[in-house]
Amino acid sequence: MFDEGMVNERCRWPRWRDRLRTAEQAAALIEDGMTVGMSGFTRAGEAKAVPRALAERANNEPLAITLMTGASLGNDLDKLLTEANALSRRMPFQVDATLRRAINDGSVMFMDQHLSETVELLRNRQLAEMDVAVIEACAITEEGYIVPTTSVGNSASYAILADKVIIELNLDSPAALEGLHDIYIPQMRPTRTPIPVVAPDSRIGTPYIPIDPDSVAAIVITQGKDSPSTVQPPDNDTRRIAEHLIGFFADEVEIGRLTPALLPLQAGIGNMANAVVSGLAEGPFKHLTMYSEVLQDSTFELLDSGKLDFASGCSITLSERCGERVWNDIERYRDRLILRPQELSNHPGIIRRLGIIAINTALEMDIYGNVNSTHVGGTKMMNGIGGSGDFARNAQLSVFITKSLAKGGDISSIVPFVSHVDHTEHDVDIFVTEHGLADLRGLAPRERAVQIIERCVDPSYRPALRRYFADACKRGGHTPHCLEQALSWHIAMEEHGHMRRFRSEETADAV
Amino acid sequence: MFDEGMVNERCRWPRWRDRLRTAEQAAALIEDGMTVGMSGFTRAGEAKAVPRALAERANNEPLAITLMTGASLGNDLDKLLTEANALSRRMPFQVDATLRRAINDGSVMFMDQHLSETVELLRNRQLAEMDVAVIEACAITEEGYIVPTTSVGNSASYAILADKVIIELNLDSPAALEGLHDIYIPQMRPTRTPIPVVAPDSRIGTPYIPIDPDSVAAIVITQGKDSPSTVQPPDNDTRRIAEHLIGFFADEVEIGRLTPALLPLQAGIGNMANAVVSGLAEGPFKHLTMYSEVLQDSTFELLDSGKLDFASGCSITLSERCGERVWNDIERYRDRLILRPQELSNHPGIIRRLGIIAINTALEMDIYGNVNSTHVGGTKMMNGIGGSGDFARNAQLSVFITKSLAKGGDISSIVPFVSHVDHTEHDVDIFVTEHGLADLRGLAPRERAVQIIERCVDPSYRPALRRYFADACKRGGHTPHCLEQALSWHIAMEEHGHMRRFRSEETADAV
Repeated sequence: MFDEGMVNERCRWPRWRDRLRTAEQAAALIEDGMTVGMSGFTRAGEAKAVPRALAERANNEPLAITLMTGASLGNDLDKLLTEANALSRRMPFQVDATLRRAINDGSVMFMDQHLSETVELLRNRQLAEMDVAVIEACAITEEGYIVPTTSVGNSASYAILADKVIIELNLDSPAALEGLHDIYIPQMRPTRTPIPVVAPDSRIGTPYIPIDPDSVAAIVITQGKDSPSTVQPPDNDTRRIAEHLIGFFADEVEIGRLTPALLPLQAGIGNMANAVVSGLAEGPFKHLTMYSEVLQDSTFELLDSGKLDFASGCSITLSERCGERVWNDIERYRDRLILRPQELSNHPGIIRRLGIIAINTALEMDIYGNVNSTHVGGTKMMNGIGGSGDFARNAQLSVFITKSLAKGGDISSIVPFVSHVDHTEHDVDIFVTEHGLADLRGLAPRERAVQIIERCVDPSYRPALRRYFADACKRGGHTPHCLEQALSWHIAMEEHGHMRRFRSEETADAV
Repeated sequence: MFDEGMVNERCRWPRWRDRLRTAEQAAALIEDGMTVGMSGFTRAGEAKAVPRALAERANNEPLAITLMTGASLGNDLDKLLTEANALSRRMPFQVDATLRRAINDGSVMFMDQHLSETVELLRNRQLAEMDVAVIEACAITEEGYIVPTTSVGNSASYAILADKVIIELNLDSPAALEGLHDIYIPQMRPTRTPIPVVAPDSRIGTPYIPIDPDSVAAIVITQGKDSPSTVQPPDNDTRRIAEHLIGFFADEVEIGRLTPALLPLQAGIGNMANAVVSGLAEGPFKHLTMYSEVLQDSTFELLDSGKLDFASGCSITLSERCGERVWNDIERYRDRLILRPQELSNHPGIIRRLGIIAINTALEMDIYGNVNSTHVGGTKMMNGIGGSGDFARNAQLSVFITKSLAKGGDISSIVPFVSHVDHTEHDVDIFVTEHGLADLRGLAPRERAVQIIERCVDPSYRPALRRYFADACKRGGHTPHCLEQALSWHIAMEEHGHMRRFRSEETADAV
């Protein structure tokens, strides 16, 4: 099955043999109706064998659980579990097409939560108590403590709060991950003392998850890799988004509002934010730092370029090519990386304290600056709000980026009235598309509309939005609207699959 | 003009005579186009004479400023300034009918901000720099430092950041206020150290605003009182809202999720939150604390009843009757009160740290738990978001309350789709009307809809919302909607002034 010598190297806890189980045996500890917490954040560091065994069992017997993770899982686990009808409730984030369908048809109840809040709710007993935690480890310490792999996510609190803990010791995970993690559990409220993170490189905890070793119900030896990131290199549009934003940062440095070190950076997951971070290598910046959630390829490019001094996150999700380079040479990055629990990486108080620049992707925005990050057409869940709210709400500078068009121009990402609000007008400072950047700071809604329409909307949709705004202003209001037309763009999309009737031929002022 | 002996008692700064000016002379320091910061929060502690003189001047010459305050002003100052066309821009909150009209017709640009953020934006130079600050004081120290009156609001940072400071020394303000304030200015980011508030009674600063005395451009001796609070005693509906919520707290204590001390409490301004706080005197609670924004009559009732150990806020706004009692006997409360800058009273990091129970009033809510606090019919500004977002977003328990009906039943406060979102579905835990309480914790949108419709909606509007929800569920989606009907309730209100066509005769299941 596995090389015992390798296990002994990874597992320094003398009692491990007593707890050794197969994935099937461990999965048998999970019963129908239980609440289960699993490691895994943006397809990094998820437990791999036990959920697969659980899905197989659920194919043969009624078994449905509440599944809580850090964020999304890789290796098609959410798909397998959904297909096996093993999920009755799921939180706080997902990105799987099969699970998404089940959420949208109402067969899986999904709680779309700010990623910093899940363990607070659990700790305060505002959610069902956790029966079993399943955590991937790259090592187990002498004391029986868990050293996580490529993500910390919610693993620490899940393991501490669960009645039983199943550890998947992954022999394929880089042993060199040990020492990278910084595990700190905030005290109970209302007598919590300040969390002492004062900079991205603050180390305040332990490099392992300290659990009661008696709660370890099973150790499963596994092998297998994280699913690689599907991040794409920048295209023309994402490159222009990056250029606009980097130009703005450079201007802010020029007028003395920011230093060349900017401020600790957060960048959401995905191609657009990745392109922006990559682009920072070109600007007049130095000694940059990141205090972010997931660290992507671009973080390591920026570390390599010498522009980035330090990166703090709660997971590392890399493309295959970048992963090979990084994991084979992790020593080179060791002193410039920390992986924290997502409660800390996304902590409102720390984000406010550090004065972060938050860069997140919008699905849809309206002319007044409200952002939809989650719902297609106002009804269908895409992935979830993730950490974007934790950051946008508390950042010193909250940036949202998106391409101005979707579906080859059939859809404008900027509409009169967003069909769902995840980030309110109060929480958006800067909005960027490939066409330009709207600086919304200190502006009233009517002023924001002009900036957003004229700078960010695709020229082909500008006339229709200008008309909407002009008609609305005639009716008055702090935030003028023509209510009977407000959702007409989405209704058109629902009926015809596109918004083309709001599109004009005008491209004269196209950039 | 005034009794020099009294001034000498209140003003221990030897150089005060050099700076003595009339209100008109001081107002002359304010020029057209300037950015001016004034004291005042929820009609408490605003500068009174200089803004009045400014309005008079603006009646005779072109003069329009950007006016920043703590929150709302009393003594009709916003009205006078608006009528004189003296306001071009206003932030971050207001409650005046005349100003509201000007905001809604687009003649005053209003920035509706989270109240904890205004001074952060100013400090980071993300807003125009502050030319003049006008701050009401109850005393001036030997060093020339300002002791504020009944509110701190944003006064400290305004006075520190402004080029010139005008102090209104109000001889009618209670001298005994001195010592109540706790002024602390967070350090610049990204090198800010943790703000050391660890409990409502943490004193971390100075009892005065430390300014450079050279920036004091004028001292104006004034007299006059704050406008009294218009808070009303509980009516049947607000009493029932309070009963539902207090019953819920008692249950949470019973099952051990909360202790009898609950958690530090925040209650928004207004009759409903005031009724809830009053009602706490009746429950099985003891050693309560408040970490709130404005302290209203109910805070002092609760202090008197012995249930409340300590209250921290950024302003005190009392009815005439309660004010007389409190201000004449302030020594009795001295050890149980702190007034802080609103940046501290509303600080996201402190709110998260203390695990606050936040109780705020909704203008409108939808069946999925999104809250509108600001916009009537989606377009017309009422007052502003105020501190509700600071608290709701970071509280341990976020409660929103409202009466289920408005305008004698012509309007349902619960609609299919809110016309504006100030608090997203992610940030609302508990929703209460006079009909009942919906506990939304850990629920998916479809589950929330059932709770909200069946427990909180007025029975006369339930059938229409049940139909909407059922029809929407047939179409599917994580958050089901019939987009073409989503805003129809607001469109009906816009056309007819009421939503009666959605009202049924059914009252069988009325509580």
